[in-house]
Amino acid sequence: MAGRKVCIVGVGKIARDQHVPAIDASPDWELAATVSRQGSVEGVPTFRDFDVMLAERDDIEVVSLCLPPQPRFQYARKALKAGRHVMLEKPPGQTLAEVHHLQRLAAEAGVTLFATWHSRMGKGVAGAKAHLAGKEVTGGRITWKEDVRHWHPGQDWVFEPGGMGVFDPGINALSILTEILPKPVHVLRADLDFPNGRQTPIAARIEFSRGVAMELDWLQTGPQTWDIEIETADGSHVVLRSGGNELWIDGERKPVADIEEYPALYARMADLVSEGRSDVDLSPLVHVADAMTLGRRNIVEPFAF
Amino acid sequence: MAGRKVCIVGVGKIARDQHVPAIDASPDWELAATVSRQGSVEGVPTFRDFDVMLAERDDIEVVSLCLPPQPRFQYARKALKAGRHVMLEKPPGQTLAEVHHLQRLAAEAGVTLFATWHSRMGKGVAGAKAHLAGKEVTGGRITWKEDVRHWHPGQDWVFEPGGMGVFDPGINALSILTEILPKPVHVLRADLDFPNGRQTPIAARIEFSRGVAMELDWLQTGPQTWDIEIETADGSHVVLRSGGNELWIDGERKPVADIEEYPALYARMADLVSEGRSDVDLSPLVHVADAMTLGRRNIVEPFAF
Repeated sequence: MAGRKVCIVGVGKIARDQHVPAIDASPDWELAATVSRQGSVEGVPTFRDFDVMLAERDDIEVVSLCLPPQPRFQYARKALKAGRHVMLEKPPGQTLAEVHHLQRLAAEAGVTLFATWHSRMGKGVAGAKAHLAGKEVTGGRITWKEDVRHWHPGQDWVFEPGGMGVFDPGINALSILTEILPKPVHVLRADLDFPNGRQTPIAARIEFSRGVAMELDWLQTGPQTWDIEIETADGSHVVLRSGGNELWIDGERKPVADIEEYPALYARMADLVSEGRSDVDLSPLVHVADAMTLGRRNIVEPFAF
Repeated sequence: MAGRKVCIVGVGKIARDQHVPAIDASPDWELAATVSRQGSVEGVPTFRDFDVMLAERDDIEVVSLCLPPQPRFQYARKALKAGRHVMLEKPPGQTLAEVHHLQRLAAEAGVTLFATWHSRMGKGVAGAKAHLAGKEVTGGRITWKEDVRHWHPGQDWVFEPGGMGVFDPGINALSILTEILPKPVHVLRADLDFPNGRQTPIAARIEFSRGVAMELDWLQTGPQTWDIEIETADGSHVVLRSGGNELWIDGERKPVADIEEYPALYARMADLVSEGRSDVDLSPLVHVADAMTLGRRNIVEPFAF
């Protein structure tokens, strides 16, 4: 049986590195077209104009949006209004209310909307969640330190309004945290470092309820750190490293799932479409909005790529 | 029949000006106690310690929280855990996630949580909503200009993290907008003016979808302006003035409700408690969080009271 036809919109780094290989490797999917201003994928029809793709290719059921968050809403809106199922890269929008809008459109059109959080598919995440179920969390530390120059070379949009700054990686940590905790937390205090002249933070320190602290830094050269540690009232100590892909419980390394993040996202999307359901959990974006609303702003040294 | 017993927590300007008179004038309610560090209400028992009030006065079913938003969550949490119905002044919290937390606690305790938006009880709001029902909105302007020195004299907390700045009055406009529009809007762009050295904006210009624009200014001396104008595709022009209390449709002044905002809030709370329901609409706070997340920050002149 041929795979379900999907169109990738936005052929940039994340599409090439993750989406295209995941689709190519899956019998569930066929990459039937791309839409991109400049990029293309060899052997796949490319459209420069999204409206033309929607008009000419009604055989394509699913649209996967890999653009930066700023233009994403207008593409998602058009796709949903054209009756296509939609997969959103993270974050699902620039604002909460625009995603609420997309949820209404998907419900009206009777199609699937999947707000993906790739880090939730980290190989150790399900094991951490299962271990924490029913336990009382008494503390935790998120340490997310990476080098923006390496991961977003020259991408000035991350420092423009809506680009999220260090919350672009930080929301990955929050997507894991909100998945594994047995009860939700909320932001109590946030310190945000804005480079002079930039519109989004480059570092942040956030204190959540239940004793959970988060440290985000986008200027980390050398080894990169994406760790989450959680302690529970019964003395358990759960550690996820490598962005959710390695799991230790009480000092012992545990076996993890053997499917990679993006193949797991596309497998989930295939299930959602088959079952006629949507999956839109905004809790990671709520934490970012709360930190940006409540946060104390410090102006730090200018940043240039 | 004696009124339902309510305790006011936080005896400041809003409690004295609005809550106490509304309770005193209603046969549904009896002001049975207050909790305040300094203030009190003549003839009403005063507690300095909220825990003592909760322990000693289990005859008091309802707690009405009139504190600034920063400490409000801890009081609301204690009240809900003690099985009391809770009324929250606006905004209902510093963050969205903390209000989600309160919603879960209220549901667990089987009590009423009412996140009040007093401006929604403006006398002309229901008439505007009824007129706009089913219409297509093509544009609108919110103009909310008042003098922070007059309305919040010396209240430095409004410029501290969580104090919301000009969104403290602006959220009143948003509570009306989200009530009267037949379909929701979302923030497209926001410009936020932060006084040098302060943590919240003193002015903002926000562009919403459906052609709705908002201008907030907290340095308006002389006449104060709290106006909302909405245009529709069928040529209708709806104007609310005086913070929702006066209504014009197509240039003609219309009759409005004859109950004041706070008496209407307490009448609604009496209904909610009787019916065992809650009323927590976070859409005004979502717009503020979205504007603070997406907004472009301009640093403007320092502000001192």
